[in-house]
Amino acid sequence: MADYTFFTNPMSRGQIARWALHEAGADYDTELVDWQEKPGALLDANPMGKVPTLVHHHGSHVHVITEAAAICAYLAEVSAPDLLPTVEERASYLRWMFFAAGPVEQAVTAKAMGWDVPDGKESMAGFGTYDRTVETLASVLSGRDFICGDRFTMADVYVGSQVDWGLMFQSLPADDAFKTYAERLRVRPKYREAKAIDQKLIDEAQANG
Amino acid sequence: MADYTFFTNPMSRGQIARWALHEAGADYDTELVDWQEKPGALLDANPMGKVPTLVHHHGSHVHVITEAAAICAYLAEVSAPDLLPTVEERASYLRWMFFAAGPVEQAVTAKAMGWDVPDGKESMAGFGTYDRTVETLASVLSGRDFICGDRFTMADVYVGSQVDWGLMFQSLPADDAFKTYAERLRVRPKYREAKAIDQKLIDEAQANG
Repeated sequence: MADYTFFTNPMSRGQIARWALHEAGADYDTELVDWQEKPGALLDANPMGKVPTLVHHHGSHVHVITEAAAICAYLAEVSAPDLLPTVEERASYLRWMFFAAGPVEQAVTAKAMGWDVPDGKESMAGFGTYDRTVETLASVLSGRDFICGDRFTMADVYVGSQVDWGLMFQSLPADDAFKTYAERLRVRPKYREAKAIDQKLIDEAQANG
Repeated sequence: MADYTFFTNPMSRGQIARWALHEAGADYDTELVDWQEKPGALLDANPMGKVPTLVHHHGSHVHVITEAAAICAYLAEVSAPDLLPTVEERASYLRWMFFAAGPVEQAVTAKAMGWDVPDGKESMAGFGTYDRTVETLASVLSGRDFICGDRFTMADVYVGSQVDWGLMFQSLPADDAFKTYAERLRVRPKYREAKAIDQKLIDEAQANG
Protein backbone atom coordinates (compact mmCIF):
# COMPACT_ATOMS: atom_id res chain seq x y z
CA MET A 1 0.00 0.00 0.00
CA ALA A 2 1.20 3.49 -0.82
CA ASP A 3 1.82 5.98 2.01
CA TYR A 4 -1.14 8.10 0.96
CA THR A 5 -4.57 7.50 -0.53
CA PHE A 6 -5.67 10.54 -2.49
CA PHE A 7 -9.40 11.02 -3.14
CA THR A 8 -9.88 13.51 -5.92
CA ASN A 9 -11.74 14.61 -8.98
CA PRO A 10 -9.61 16.16 -11.72
CA MET A 11 -12.07 19.06 -12.07
CA SER A 12 -11.65 20.29 -8.50
CA ARG A 13 -9.35 21.81 -5.91
CA GLY A 14 -7.85 18.31 -5.95
CA GLN A 15 -5.44 19.70 -8.56
CA ILE A 16 -3.83 21.75 -5.78
CA ALA A 17 -3.29 18.65 -3.64
CA ARG A 18 -1.91 16.62 -6.55
CA TRP A 19 0.64 19.32 -7.30
CA ALA A 20 1.60 19.32 -3.60
CA LEU A 21 1.96 15.51 -3.64
CA HIS A 22 4.35 15.75 -6.59
CA GLU A 23 6.38 18.61 -5.10
CA ALA A 24 6.70 16.51 -1.94
CA GLY A 25 7.69 13.43 -3.93
CA ALA A 26 5.02 11.51 -2.02
CA ASP A 27 4.07 7.90 -2.72
CA TYR A 28 0.30 7.86 -3.32
CA ASP A 29 -2.61 5.95 -4.84
CA THR A 30 -5.39 7.91 -6.50
CA GLU A 31 -9.09 7.17 -5.93
CA LEU A 32 -11.20 9.04 -8.43
CA VAL A 33 -14.41 10.42 -7.02
CA ASP A 34 -17.52 10.80 -9.12
CA TRP A 35 -19.77 13.63 -7.89
CA GLN A 36 -22.86 11.42 -8.11
CA GLU A 37 -21.57 8.25 -6.51
CA LYS A 38 -19.07 8.92 -3.77
CA PRO A 39 -17.06 5.89 -2.68
CA GLY A 40 -17.75 4.51 0.82
CA ALA A 41 -14.05 4.76 1.70
CA LEU A 42 -14.18 8.52 1.11
CA LEU A 43 -17.32 8.97 3.21
CA ASP A 44 -15.73 6.91 5.99
CA ALA A 45 -12.69 9.20 5.97
CA ASN A 46 -14.60 12.45 5.43
CA PRO A 47 -18.38 12.37 5.91
CA MET A 48 -18.65 15.68 4.03
CA GLY A 49 -17.47 13.76 0.97
CA LYS A 50 -15.39 16.72 -0.18
CA VAL A 51 -12.39 16.37 -2.44
CA PRO A 52 -9.51 16.59 -2.10
CA THR A 53 -9.29 14.29 0.91
CA LEU A 54 -5.93 12.77 1.73
CA VAL A 55 -5.50 9.67 3.91
CA HIS A 56 -2.05 9.09 5.38
CA HIS A 57 -1.29 5.46 6.32
CA HIS A 58 1.21 6.04 9.07
CA GLY A 59 2.23 2.77 10.71
CA SER A 60 -0.74 1.65 12.80
CA HIS A 61 -2.32 5.11 12.50
CA VAL A 62 -4.56 6.48 9.79
CA HIS A 63 -4.67 10.26 9.44
CA VAL A 64 -7.24 12.10 7.38
CA ILE A 65 -6.49 15.55 6.02
CA THR A 66 -9.01 17.75 4.22
CA GLU A 67 -8.82 21.35 2.98
CA ALA A 68 -6.37 21.93 0.17
CA ALA A 69 -4.23 24.30 2.23
CA ALA A 70 -4.00 21.85 5.13
CA ILE A 71 -2.98 19.10 2.72
CA CYS A 72 -0.15 21.28 1.39
CA ALA A 73 1.03 22.17 4.90
CA TYR A 74 0.82 18.55 6.07
CA LEU A 75 2.77 17.19 3.12
CA ALA A 76 5.55 19.71 3.68
CA GLU A 77 5.82 18.79 7.36
CA VAL A 78 5.74 15.03 6.81
CA SER A 79 7.35 14.50 3.43
CA ALA A 80 9.11 17.63 2.20
CA PRO A 81 11.12 19.46 4.87
CA ASP A 82 12.91 21.46 2.15
CA LEU A 83 9.59 23.12 1.32
CA LEU A 84 8.95 24.20 4.91
CA PRO A 85 9.76 27.81 5.80
CA THR A 86 12.93 28.80 7.60
CA VAL A 87 12.56 30.73 10.86
CA GLU A 88 12.72 33.99 8.92
CA GLU A 89 10.20 32.81 6.30
CA ARG A 90 7.66 31.45 8.78
CA ALA A 91 5.59 34.61 9.26
CA SER A 92 5.04 35.00 5.51
CA TYR A 93 4.39 31.28 5.05
CA LEU A 94 1.58 31.17 7.61
CA ARG A 95 0.23 34.64 6.93
CA TRP A 96 -0.26 34.16 3.19
CA MET A 97 -1.46 30.55 3.40
CA PHE A 98 -4.23 31.65 5.75
CA PHE A 99 -4.84 34.83 3.77
CA ALA A 100 -5.38 32.78 0.62
CA ALA A 101 -7.53 30.15 2.37
CA GLY A 102 -9.63 32.77 4.16
CA PRO A 103 -10.03 36.26 2.66
CA VAL A 104 -8.99 35.46 -0.92
CA GLU A 105 -11.16 32.33 -1.20
CA GLN A 106 -14.04 34.21 0.37
CA ALA A 107 -13.69 37.33 -1.78
CA VAL A 108 -13.44 35.32 -5.00
CA THR A 109 -16.44 33.14 -4.05
CA ALA A 110 -18.56 36.17 -3.13
CA LYS A 111 -17.75 37.76 -6.47
CA ALA A 112 -18.53 34.57 -8.40
CA MET A 113 -21.87 34.23 -6.61
CA GLY A 114 -22.73 37.88 -7.16
CA TRP A 115 -22.80 38.66 -3.43
CA ASP A 116 -22.11 42.24 -2.36
CA VAL A 117 -20.99 43.31 1.09
CA PRO A 118 -23.51 45.95 2.23
CA ASP A 119 -22.00 49.38 3.02
CA GLY A 120 -20.89 49.54 6.63
CA LYS A 121 -20.68 45.76 7.01
CA GLU A 122 -17.10 45.43 5.72
CA SER A 123 -15.76 44.65 9.19
CA MET A 124 -18.21 41.73 9.54
CA ALA A 125 -16.72 40.10 6.46
CA GLY A 126 -13.19 38.93 7.20
CA PHE A 127 -12.10 39.89 3.71
CA GLY A 128 -13.45 43.45 3.86
CA THR A 129 -13.81 44.02 0.13
CA TYR A 130 -12.79 42.09 -2.98
CA ASP A 131 -10.70 44.97 -4.30
CA ARG A 132 -8.77 45.49 -1.09
CA THR A 133 -8.09 41.77 -0.73
CA VAL A 134 -6.87 41.39 -4.31
CA GLU A 135 -4.73 44.53 -4.11
CA THR A 136 -3.09 43.24 -0.94
CA LEU A 137 -2.13 39.97 -2.59
CA ALA A 138 -0.92 41.70 -5.77
CA SER A 139 1.10 44.12 -3.69
CA VAL A 140 3.03 41.45 -1.80
CA LEU A 141 3.72 39.49 -5.00
CA SER A 142 4.98 42.56 -6.84
CA GLY A 143 7.87 42.80 -4.39
CA ARG A 144 9.15 39.22 -4.39
CA ASP A 145 9.51 36.15 -6.59
CA PHE A 146 7.79 33.72 -4.23
CA ILE A 147 5.40 34.20 -1.33
CA CYS A 148 8.15 33.90 1.32
CA GLY A 149 10.81 35.76 -0.67
CA ASP A 150 13.29 34.45 -3.23
CA ARG A 151 12.70 30.75 -2.66
CA PHE A 152 9.83 28.39 -3.55
CA THR A 153 8.07 26.87 -0.51
CA MET A 154 4.95 24.78 -0.10
CA ALA A 155 2.98 27.98 0.52
CA ASP A 156 3.49 28.75 -3.18
CA VAL A 157 1.59 25.60 -4.13
CA TYR A 158 -1.48 26.83 -2.32
CA VAL A 159 -1.26 30.59 -2.87
CA GLY A 160 0.05 30.00 -6.39
CA SER A 161 -2.87 27.73 -7.23
CA GLN A 162 -5.29 30.45 -6.21
CA VAL A 163 -3.49 32.89 -8.49
CA ASP A 164 -3.14 30.35 -11.33
CA TRP A 165 -6.87 29.45 -11.26
CA GLY A 166 -7.90 33.05 -10.67
CA LEU A 167 -6.14 34.12 -13.87
CA MET A 168 -7.51 31.16 -15.87
CA PHE A 169 -11.10 31.66 -14.75
CA GLN A 170 -10.80 35.47 -14.60
CA SER A 171 -11.85 35.54 -10.98
CA LEU A 172 -8.67 37.56 -10.35
CA PRO A 173 -7.61 40.51 -12.51
CA ALA A 174 -4.78 40.02 -15.03
CA ASP A 175 -2.40 42.05 -12.89
CA ASP A 176 1.29 41.93 -13.90
CA ALA A 177 2.30 40.72 -10.43
CA PHE A 178 -0.10 37.80 -10.70
CA LYS A 179 0.93 36.96 -14.26
CA THR A 180 4.68 36.87 -13.63
CA TYR A 181 4.18 34.87 -10.43
CA ALA A 182 1.98 32.32 -12.22
CA GLU A 183 4.51 31.99 -15.06
CA ARG A 184 7.25 31.29 -12.53
CA LEU A 185 5.17 28.42 -11.13
CA ARG A 186 3.87 26.97 -14.40
CA VAL A 187 7.37 26.10 -15.60
CA ARG A 188 8.11 23.93 -12.57
CA PRO A 189 8.55 20.27 -13.57
CA LYS A 190 6.36 19.02 -10.70
CA TYR A 191 3.58 21.46 -11.62
CA ARG A 192 3.64 20.19 -15.21
CA GLU A 193 3.79 16.55 -14.15
CA ALA A 194 0.77 16.89 -11.83
CA LYS A 195 -1.30 18.99 -14.22
CA ALA A 196 -0.65 16.53 -17.08
CA ILE A 197 -2.21 13.73 -15.00
CA ASP A 198 -5.34 15.74 -14.23
CA GLN A 199 -5.62 16.97 -17.82
CA LYS A 200 -5.43 13.40 -19.12
CA LEU A 201 -8.20 12.36 -16.71
CA ILE A 202 -10.34 15.30 -17.81
CA ASP A 203 -9.78 14.45 -21.49
CA GLU A 204 -10.69 10.78 -20.89
CA ALA A 205 -13.85 11.72 -19.00
CA GLN A 206 -14.88 14.04 -21.82
CA ALA A 207 -14.19 11.37 -24.46
CA ASN A 208 -16.34 8.90 -22.50
CA GLY A 209 -19.05 11.39 -21.56
CA MET B 1 10.97 46.65 23.69
CA ALA B 2 8.70 43.63 24.05
CA ASP B 3 9.11 40.69 21.65
CA TYR B 4 5.79 41.43 19.99
CA THR B 5 3.75 44.52 19.13
CA PHE B 6 0.07 43.64 19.03
CA PHE B 7 -2.26 45.92 17.06
CA THR B 8 -5.82 45.26 18.09
CA ASN B 9 -9.25 46.55 18.88
CA PRO B 10 -11.03 44.85 21.78
CA MET B 11 -14.23 44.50 19.69
CA SER B 12 -12.62 42.38 16.98
CA ARG B 13 -11.01 39.07 16.09
CA GLY B 14 -8.09 40.57 18.02
CA GLN B 15 -9.55 38.75 21.04
CA ILE B 16 -8.46 35.48 19.43
CA ALA B 17 -4.89 36.71 19.07
CA ARG B 18 -4.77 38.04 22.62
CA TRP B 19 -5.87 34.69 24.00
CA ALA B 20 -3.15 33.03 21.88
CA LEU B 21 -0.54 35.49 23.19
CA HIS B 22 -1.48 34.60 26.77
CA GLU B 23 -1.53 30.84 26.14
CA ALA B 24 1.93 31.23 24.60
CA GLY B 25 3.15 33.31 27.54
CA ALA B 26 4.41 35.85 25.03
CA ASP B 27 5.91 39.21 25.97
CA TYR B 28 3.92 41.87 24.09
CA ASP B 29 2.95 45.53 23.93
CA THR B 30 -0.57 46.44 22.88
CA GLU B 31 -1.34 49.20 20.38
CA LEU B 32 -5.04 49.98 20.38
CA VAL B 33 -6.46 50.71 16.95
CA ASP B 34 -9.35 53.06 16.47
CA TRP B 35 -11.42 52.18 13.38
CA GLN B 36 -11.46 55.82 12.24
CA GLU B 37 -7.84 56.77 12.78
CA LYS B 38 -5.50 53.89 12.12
CA PRO B 39 -1.95 54.40 13.42
CA GLY B 40 0.79 54.83 10.83
CA ALA B 41 2.80 52.00 12.39
CA LEU B 42 -0.09 49.61 11.69
CA LEU B 43 -0.45 50.76 8.08
CA ASP B 44 3.31 50.39 7.59
CA ALA B 45 3.13 46.79 8.84
CA ASN B 46 -0.16 45.90 7.15
CA PRO B 47 -1.44 48.29 4.48
CA MET B 48 -4.90 46.66 4.75
CA GLY B 49 -5.03 48.11 8.27
CA LYS B 50 -6.77 44.99 9.57
CA VAL B 51 -6.62 43.91 13.19
CA PRO B 52 -5.31 41.77 14.65
CA THR B 53 -1.84 42.41 13.23
CA LEU B 54 1.14 41.06 15.14
CA VAL B 55 4.68 42.34 14.69
CA HIS B 56 7.49 40.09 15.91
CA HIS B 57 10.75 41.89 16.71
CA HIS B 58 13.19 39.07 16.08
CA GLY B 59 16.78 40.25 16.44
CA SER B 60 17.49 42.38 13.38
CA HIS B 61 14.36 41.05 11.64
CA VAL B 62 10.82 42.31 11.85
CA HIS B 63 8.09 39.83 10.99
CA VAL B 64 4.49 40.79 10.37
CA ILE B 65 1.72 38.26 10.87
CA THR B 66 -1.92 38.87 10.01
CA GLU B 67 -4.96 36.55 10.01
CA ALA B 68 -6.02 35.34 13.45
CA ALA B 69 -5.35 31.68 12.58
CA ALA B 70 -1.85 32.46 11.29
CA ILE B 71 -1.09 34.40 14.46
CA CYS B 72 -2.11 31.39 16.58
CA ALA B 73 -0.01 29.01 14.49
CA TYR B 74 2.99 31.36 14.52
CA LEU B 75 2.91 31.89 18.28
CA ALA B 76 2.82 28.15 18.87
CA GLU B 77 5.82 27.59 16.61
CA VAL B 78 7.90 30.43 18.01
CA SER B 79 6.87 30.72 21.63
CA ALA B 80 4.82 27.69 22.76
CA PRO B 81 6.17 24.35 21.53
CA ASP B 82 3.94 22.54 24.07
CA LEU B 83 0.91 23.76 22.16
CA LEU B 84 2.15 22.42 18.83
CA PRO B 85 0.71 19.11 17.66
CA THR B 86 2.56 15.82 18.02
CA VAL B 87 3.16 13.80 14.85
CA GLU B 88 -0.11 11.94 15.45
CA GLU B 89 -2.05 15.14 16.14
CA ARG B 90 -0.75 17.05 13.14
CA ALA B 91 -3.43 16.04 10.62
CA SER B 92 -6.25 17.19 12.92
CA TYR B 93 -4.39 20.35 13.90
CA LEU B 94 -3.95 21.53 10.32
CA ARG B 95 -7.24 20.16 9.00
CA TRP B 96 -9.45 21.88 11.57
CA MET B 97 -7.49 25.14 11.69
CA PHE B 98 -7.94 25.53 7.94
CA PHE B 99 -11.52 24.23 8.11
CA ALA B 100 -12.37 26.91 10.66
CA ALA B 101 -10.50 29.67 8.79
CA GLY B 102 -12.03 28.69 5.44
CA PRO B 103 -15.41 26.92 5.31
CA VAL B 104 -16.65 27.83 8.81
CA GLU B 105 -15.73 31.51 8.55
CA GLN B 106 -17.24 31.64 5.07
CA ALA B 107 -20.46 29.81 5.98
CA VAL B 108 -21.03 31.97 9.06
CA THR B 109 -20.32 35.19 7.13
CA ALA B 110 -22.66 34.19 4.29
CA LYS B 111 -25.42 33.48 6.78
CA ALA B 112 -24.87 36.78 8.63
CA MET B 113 -25.00 38.68 5.33
CA GLY B 114 -28.11 36.84 4.18
CA TRP B 115 -26.32 35.29 1.19
CA ASP B 116 -27.69 32.02 -0.19
CA VAL B 117 -25.75 29.58 -2.32
CA PRO B 118 -27.85 29.03 -5.45
CA ASP B 119 -28.92 25.41 -6.04
CA GLY B 120 -26.34 23.56 -8.05
CA LYS B 121 -23.54 25.98 -7.13
CA GLU B 122 -22.54 24.24 -3.87
CA SER B 123 -19.30 22.94 -5.38
CA MET B 124 -18.28 26.50 -6.33
CA ALA B 125 -18.47 27.54 -2.70
CA GLY B 126 -15.72 25.84 -0.75
CA PHE B 127 -18.04 25.44 2.24
CA GLY B 128 -20.85 23.77 0.29
CA THR B 129 -23.70 24.65 2.63
CA TYR B 130 -23.92 26.22 6.09
CA ASP B 131 -25.70 23.19 7.55
CA ARG B 132 -23.20 20.67 6.25
CA THR B 133 -20.25 22.75 7.46
CA VAL B 134 -21.70 23.22 10.93
CA GLU B 135 -22.68 19.55 11.23
CA THR B 136 -19.16 18.51 10.28
CA LEU B 137 -17.63 20.65 13.02
CA ALA B 138 -20.20 19.53 15.61
CA SER B 139 -19.61 15.93 14.66
CA VAL B 140 -15.85 16.03 15.23
CA LEU B 141 -16.26 17.84 18.55
CA SER B 142 -18.85 15.38 19.83
CA GLY B 143 -16.23 12.64 19.75
CA ARG B 144 -13.32 14.34 21.53
CA ASP B 145 -12.52 16.88 24.24
CA PHE B 146 -10.22 19.04 22.11
CA ILE B 147 -9.79 19.44 18.39
CA CYS B 148 -6.74 17.11 18.23
CA GLY B 149 -8.05 14.61 20.82
CA ASP B 150 -7.69 14.66 24.58
CA ARG B 151 -5.17 17.48 24.84
CA PHE B 152 -5.44 21.26 24.38
CA THR B 153 -3.33 22.62 21.51
CA MET B 154 -3.09 26.02 19.85
CA ALA B 155 -5.66 24.87 17.28
CA ASP B 156 -8.22 25.04 20.09
CA VAL B 157 -7.58 28.76 20.50
CA TYR B 158 -8.60 29.38 16.92
CA VAL B 159 -11.30 26.75 16.40
CA GLY B 160 -12.54 27.29 19.95
CA SER B 161 -12.83 31.04 19.40
CA GLN B 162 -15.04 30.42 16.38
CA VAL B 163 -17.26 28.16 18.50
CA ASP B 164 -17.22 30.52 21.50
CA TRP B 165 -18.22 33.55 19.40
CA GLY B 166 -20.64 31.52 17.30
CA LEU B 167 -22.54 30.54 20.44
CA MET B 168 -22.45 34.07 21.89
CA PHE B 169 -23.65 35.74 18.71
CA GLN B 170 -25.90 32.82 17.71
CA SER B 171 -24.18 32.46 14.38
CA LEU B 172 -23.73 28.78 15.33
CA PRO B 173 -26.53 26.63 16.72
CA ALA B 174 -26.53 25.83 20.48
CA ASP B 175 -25.48 22.25 19.81
CA ASP B 176 -24.40 20.22 22.87
CA ALA B 177 -21.04 19.42 21.30
CA PHE B 178 -20.34 23.14 20.83
CA LYS B 179 -21.54 24.06 24.32
CA THR B 180 -19.46 21.51 26.21
CA TYR B 181 -16.39 22.33 24.12
CA ALA B 182 -16.80 26.07 24.77
CA GLU B 183 -17.25 25.45 28.51
CA ARG B 184 -14.03 23.45 28.56
CA LEU B 185 -12.20 26.43 27.04
CA ARG B 186 -13.83 29.21 29.05
CA VAL B 187 -12.47 27.89 32.35
CA ARG B 188 -8.88 28.07 31.18
CA PRO B 189 -6.91 30.63 33.21
CA LYS B 190 -5.29 32.14 30.12
CA TYR B 191 -8.65 32.48 28.39
CA ARG B 192 -10.02 34.35 31.42
CA GLU B 193 -6.93 36.51 31.75
CA ALA B 194 -7.02 37.57 28.08
CA LYS B 195 -10.79 38.13 27.97
CA ALA B 196 -10.67 40.24 31.15
CA ILE B 197 -8.24 42.65 29.46
CA ASP B 198 -10.44 43.06 26.39
CA GLN B 199 -13.59 43.39 28.50
CA LYS B 200 -11.98 46.14 30.56
CA LEU B 201 -11.01 48.00 27.37
CA ILE B 202 -14.56 47.63 26.04
CA ASP B 203 -16.04 48.90 29.32
CA GLU B 204 -13.66 51.89 29.33
CA ALA B 205 -14.51 52.76 25.73
CA GLN B 206 -18.22 52.62 26.50
CA ALA B 207 -17.79 54.77 29.63
CA ASN B 208 -15.91 57.36 27.55
CA GLY B 209 -18.16 57.11 24.50
